[in-house]
Amino acid sequence: MAQNIYDTAEFFEGYSRLPRSRHGLDGAPEWPAIRALLPSLSGKRVVDLGCGFGWFARWAADQGAARVTGIDLSENMIERARRETADGRVEYRIADLETLDLPAAAYDLAYSSLAFHYLEDFGRLVRTVHRALDSGARFVFTIEHPIYMAPARPGWSTADNGRMCWPIDGYSVEGRRVTDWLAKGVVKHHRTIGTTLNTLMAAGFAIRGVVEFAPTVDQIAAEPRLAPEVERPMILIVSAEC
Amino acid sequence: MAQNIYDTAEFFEGYSRLPRSRHGLDGAPEWPAIRALLPSLSGKRVVDLGCGFGWFARWAADQGAARVTGIDLSENMIERARRETADGRVEYRIADLETLDLPAAAYDLAYSSLAFHYLEDFGRLVRTVHRALDSGARFVFTIEHPIYMAPARPGWSTADNGRMCWPIDGYSVEGRRVTDWLAKGVVKHHRTIGTTLNTLMAAGFAIRGVVEFAPTVDQIAAEPRLAPEVERPMILIVSAEC
Repeated sequence: MAQNIYDTAEFFEGYSRLPRSRHGLDGAPEWPAIRALLPSLSGKRVVDLGCGFGWFARWAADQGAARVTGIDLSENMIERARRETADGRVEYRIADLETLDLPAAAYDLAYSSLAFHYLEDFGRLVRTVHRALDSGARFVFTIEHPIYMAPARPGWSTADNGRMCWPIDGYSVEGRRVTDWLAKGVVKHHRTIGTTLNTLMAAGFAIRGVVEFAPTVDQIAAEPRLAPEVERPMILIVSAEC
Repeated sequence: MAQNIYDTAEFFEGYSRLPRSRHGLDGAPEWPAIRALLPSLSGKRVVDLGCGFGWFARWAADQGAARVTGIDLSENMIERARRETADGRVEYRIADLETLDLPAAAYDLAYSSLAFHYLEDFGRLVRTVHRALDSGARFVFTIEHPIYMAPARPGWSTADNGRMCWPIDGYSVEGRRVTDWLAKGVVKHHRTIGTTLNTLMAAGFAIRGVVEFAPTVDQIAAEPRLAPEVERPMILIVSAEC
């Protein structure tokens, strides 16, 4: 079973205070870039893998999705998602993405935000999603960018020229990374962009878009704390077609 | 016109001394990974963009290619390539990849090794190659990996834990990078992996393989100087289908 860090009190409380947890989709600077890769949701069947508090699930229903299934390992998050969702087209399910089963050809869009870097077996998940999608359906997801995740001790440093830099090591050494983020000992699984894309293609997906997210000039003007994000990407966004 | 650094005496002499210039394809550690992405060349029409001394062109002819066209901006390199090539199926042409014209549907494989990061207008080249390839043809190329190319002053550093690291800055700031490599003031053009892949897809290519090259354990055992290459990738290999 995957590590369920979200149901530890320390992590859950820290996570609940993040802008993206308090302000929903608009609290995440990468959201406009993700949205640009999404198909029209009108009448579509949608599954959100690692749905958290259900922000995306409710948004998808508002966009006219026929049915939205939110799936998360965290009982705390699913409980709050259910409490905050009044739309009958949205349902939630507690499940581990490492061992997930989904019905065949049951969805037109699989979505996931910042969940898959917690998975050890990404290939199994991708094959499960491919079977669960109808032909022509989309799979749009974000993960921590491997540049962000690779280092043994990720963090900013200062180069000789005084510029902020992000020292990388172990980029080509895939596997476990243990870091302290909101709580101690958070386990993630580093994979290169190549591995992520090749795993999708091996399962039968066609790659449709790859975005190494950086905030726009306008976003930085509105939120100067985002400025360092142009030095190294934090988030990778992928769109694939079944 | 693209900067023709290869025809300056300093660069040409330095380049001529590199293992990959002296030993050909087998002098490049990424060659086995490239070769794994190549289709059978028997009876195929091949174009090599940035062919240098013609190592690949001669190899392709040895593999049974019907016709091989090697293209390079450097008169010095084309002159040596012609001198060292006895095979009548191989021809060489001096041309700038920034303004290249190619006949339509004339090739079954377009290949390029470590040339495109010198191009300012990658999109134009990609559209030119797409038109020049037959349906189902392959486009296999390598470039310097954007992690390698992004920093204002690329180079190794030592992290607090004593491990070698590669500080990154400006990853999301695409465009000119001026570095000193074999000669002073070599101009390259940094693009993210996302931009490279999206440019290919926008021109009509389907992505077939993405490899962020790192030497294998066996390669490092045979050549210990390659060990640091696992800390950050130096070369990106892409396979696309027309």
